[in-house]
Amino acid sequence: MTASLLLRNVRPYAGSAVDVLIENGKIARIAAGIEAPAGTPIEDGRGEIMLPGLVEAHTHLDKSLWGQPWYVNEVGPKLLDKIDNERLNKRRLDIDPARQSARQSIQSSLTGSTHILSHVDVDTDHGLWGVEGVMRTRDEYRDIVDIEIVAFPQSGLLRRPGTLELMDEALKLGAGIVGGLDPCTIDRDPKGHLDAVFELCQRHGKPLDIHLHEPGEVGAFSMDMIIERTRALGMKGKVTISHAFCLGTPDPALVEPLIEQLAELDIAIMTTGPASRPAPPVKKLLGAGVRVCSGSDGIRDTWGPYGNADMLERAMFVGLRNNFRRDDELRLALDVCTTEGAKVMGVEGYGLGEGCVADLVLVPGETVAEAIVTRSPKRRVVKRGRIVARDGVSVRTAP
Amino acid sequence: MTASLLLRNVRPYAGSAVDVLIENGKIARIAAGIEAPAGTPIEDGRGEIMLPGLVEAHTHLDKSLWGQPWYVNEVGPKLLDKIDNERLNKRRLDIDPARQSARQSIQSSLTGSTHILSHVDVDTDHGLWGVEGVMRTRDEYRDIVDIEIVAFPQSGLLRRPGTLELMDEALKLGAGIVGGLDPCTIDRDPKGHLDAVFELCQRHGKPLDIHLHEPGEVGAFSMDMIIERTRALGMKGKVTISHAFCLGTPDPALVEPLIEQLAELDIAIMTTGPASRPAPPVKKLLGAGVRVCSGSDGIRDTWGPYGNADMLERAMFVGLRNNFRRDDELRLALDVCTTEGAKVMGVEGYGLGEGCVADLVLVPGETVAEAIVTRSPKRRVVKRGRIVARDGVSVRTAP
Repeated sequence: MTASLLLRNVRPYAGSAVDVLIENGKIARIAAGIEAPAGTPIEDGRGEIMLPGLVEAHTHLDKSLWGQPWYVNEVGPKLLDKIDNERLNKRRLDIDPARQSARQSIQSSLTGSTHILSHVDVDTDHGLWGVEGVMRTRDEYRDIVDIEIVAFPQSGLLRRPGTLELMDEALKLGAGIVGGLDPCTIDRDPKGHLDAVFELCQRHGKPLDIHLHEPGEVGAFSMDMIIERTRALGMKGKVTISHAFCLGTPDPALVEPLIEQLAELDIAIMTTGPASRPAPPVKKLLGAGVRVCSGSDGIRDTWGPYGNADMLERAMFVGLRNNFRRDDELRLALDVCTTEGAKVMGVEGYGLGEGCVADLVLVPGETVAEAIVTRSPKRRVVKRGRIVARDGVSVRTAP
Repeated sequence: MTASLLLRNVRPYAGSAVDVLIENGKIARIAAGIEAPAGTPIEDGRGEIMLPGLVEAHTHLDKSLWGQPWYVNEVGPKLLDKIDNERLNKRRLDIDPARQSARQSIQSSLTGSTHILSHVDVDTDHGLWGVEGVMRTRDEYRDIVDIEIVAFPQSGLLRRPGTLELMDEALKLGAGIVGGLDPCTIDRDPKGHLDAVFELCQRHGKPLDIHLHEPGEVGAFSMDMIIERTRALGMKGKVTISHAFCLGTPDPALVEPLIEQLAELDIAIMTTGPASRPAPPVKKLLGAGVRVCSGSDGIRDTWGPYGNADMLERAMFVGLRNNFRRDDELRLALDVCTTEGAKVMGVEGYGLGEGCVADLVLVPGETVAEAIVTRSPKRRVVKRGRIVARDGVSVRTAP
C-alpha cells in the first residue's frame, strides 16, 4: 500500500493530457508537469486514455473452464438441463473452484478489471467447495483484484433440502452477499424462495443479489414481490436484480411502474447486454436514477463457450444491445462497466479524483468510444498504485 | 496464379492433422506426410485449424472511416437522420471511397476474409464516386481479396429523381448486383420501388440484394412483394434479402409462410446477428434449406462506431444473437460466415476439398467453437495459394 508512481502524459476519460502522482496507493495529485519526488518510478503514459479500473459486477469465478481442455458442449436447451449438467459433471471435469477462480481473476485483471463481484454456487452436492475456493483466490490475489462473493443457490434453494442451511454457512464463512434465483420458475415457490433469501439478508445483515431470468409477466410478478419485500424490510439500496429480462418487455404499462419503484427503492440492475434475450433499457434506467452495472456472467463454462472477462468488450456488448451509436451513449456503456459497477459493489474511494484509490487502466485510443470498440489488448492496469498487468501479461502467474 | 505452397500439419475444420499441397493457386492434395516437389515453399501449420477463407457478404466498403481521425457521433435517432447526415458530410469528412475501401479491404483480408460483397452508395449528390472508388480497390487489391459490388440506392430510389438513371449507369460500369432498400419506409412506394429494382435486374441480367430493415407486419408485407416478383419473373436463386428483421417477429403465423417461400424460391437471407433488433432465426432458416450469409455491415462509419471486419467475430455475434451454445451450433455460425456466404456470392471452387481454390485461413484453437470465441489475431491468410497476411500484418500497405 506504499506504492509511489508517476504516470506521465495520460488522458483521464480521453480528455487533456496530465500527469498523475500516486502515493500510498492513492491518487495524490493530478496536474500538468508534475515534478515527482526523487526516486519515484515514472511510467510513460504515451498520451493514452486513463480510466478507473473496470468493474466486473457479475460473474461466476468458481465454474469457468478457462485453461482447461476444450469442453464440447452438447447440453440440452432448458435452464434446468444446464444447471443439472454442470452440477453432475463438476468433479468429473475437474472444475476446481480455487484454481479456476484464480485463472479467471488473472484474466480479468489483465484486461483491466480491478473489482469482481462473483456469484458462487452453493448446493448439496458440492457444499461450500466453491465458496472456499473463491475465498482462497480472493485472499491470495488481493494484490491484483478485489473480489466480493455472493452465495448463490444455483440449483435452487427450496427444491433441494439442505441448501438453505449451506447458504447460512456460506454467509458465516465469508460470502458478503445473499444470492437468489428465479423464484417462480426454478423453486416454483416465489413466496417461499423470496421469504427465505430476504430472511437470510436480515439475519446476516447482508445485501441481496438475485438472478431474475424470468421473462415478461412472470418476471414482472417476481420483481414486484422483490420490490414489496425490499420496501417492507427497509432494504432500500441493498438489493440488486441481475439480468431482469422482464424489463425488456416491449410494454411500457408493465415496465414503467417497475422502473419507478426501482428508482424509489434504489434497487440496482445488472445487465450483460444479452443479444438473444429481452434486456433492461440501460439509458432509460440510468435516466430514472437507477444504478445499472454489468458483468461477463459465465465465462467459457459448461453453460456456453463465450467470454473473455474483458469489461471493455462488455461495454461494447451493452452498447450493441442498447443500440448505442453516439459517443455520449458509448460513455454510458463505459459508466455501467466502471462507476456504476463500483456503486453497486459499494467500492470506497473509487474514481479518478485526487484522494481516490489508484485503481486504473491505461488504454490506447483517441476517445472513450474508440477505446470501447477497438478493445486494444495493449493495456496497463494499476491496482492500488502498482502496475499489475502490461500488454496482456499479469504480474501473477495462473495456476 | 502459379503459387505453390506446402502447408504442413494443419487441421481442416479442427479435424485430424494433414498436409495440404497447393499448386497453381488450388488445393492439389490433402494427405498426411506429403512429399512436396523440391523447392516448394513450406509453411509450418503448427497444428492450427484450417478453414476456408471467411466471406464478408454484406458491408459498405465505400463509407468506412477506418484510419481517419475519430468521428464524434452526435447523429439523431431516425434512419433518415443517419442517411442524410452521411450524404451531406461525405465530402467534408473526406470519405474517399477508393482510399477507404482499400483500407477496409486490407483489414478484412488480414482477419481472414478472402471474399467481400460490398453495397456501394449511388445517389444524386455523389453520383458514381463510390462505385468508381470501390471498383478501383477491387482491381488493385485482387491479389488479396475478391470484391463484388452492389449498386445501392442508400438515399432512396424514387424519392430522389435521377437516382434510377445513376443505378443504371453503375450497373453498366461494373456493379454486379442490383441493390434496394426498405420499399415502404424509405421510398414510401413499395410497388414503385420494387418494380424499379426488379426491372433493373431484368434489363441487366443481374441478381438483387435488397436491404429490408422494416419490422414486423410491414417488413413481412414488403418481403411478400419481393417473393411475388421473384416468382413471377423467374428469379429463383437470384435474390438476397439483407437484415430481414421481420423474420425475427415472435409470431410463427407471420414468419413460417415466409420461410417456406424463401426456401421454395431459394431466396437468401443476410443477417449480421444484430443485438438490438429482431433477427432472422439462423438455425431454423438453414434447417429449411434457406441460404444464410452474414457480414459486418457498416464498419466505423457515420452510422456507428462498431466493427473491425473480423468475420470470426461476426460468427460469434451470430452465435450470441441466436443463443448458440453447443459446439454443433457454433459450427452453423461459422458456416454462415464461410460456405453459406460463398453460396450467396456464387464463388466457384470454394472449400477445403482437393481442386478447390486455395483461399484459406489458419487460426489457433482446439475446436471450431474455440476459434470463434477466442478470435485470436494470430492468423495466417492464404489467397489463391499465396500467404497474404500473417499475425495481423498484410502483404499490402493501406493508403
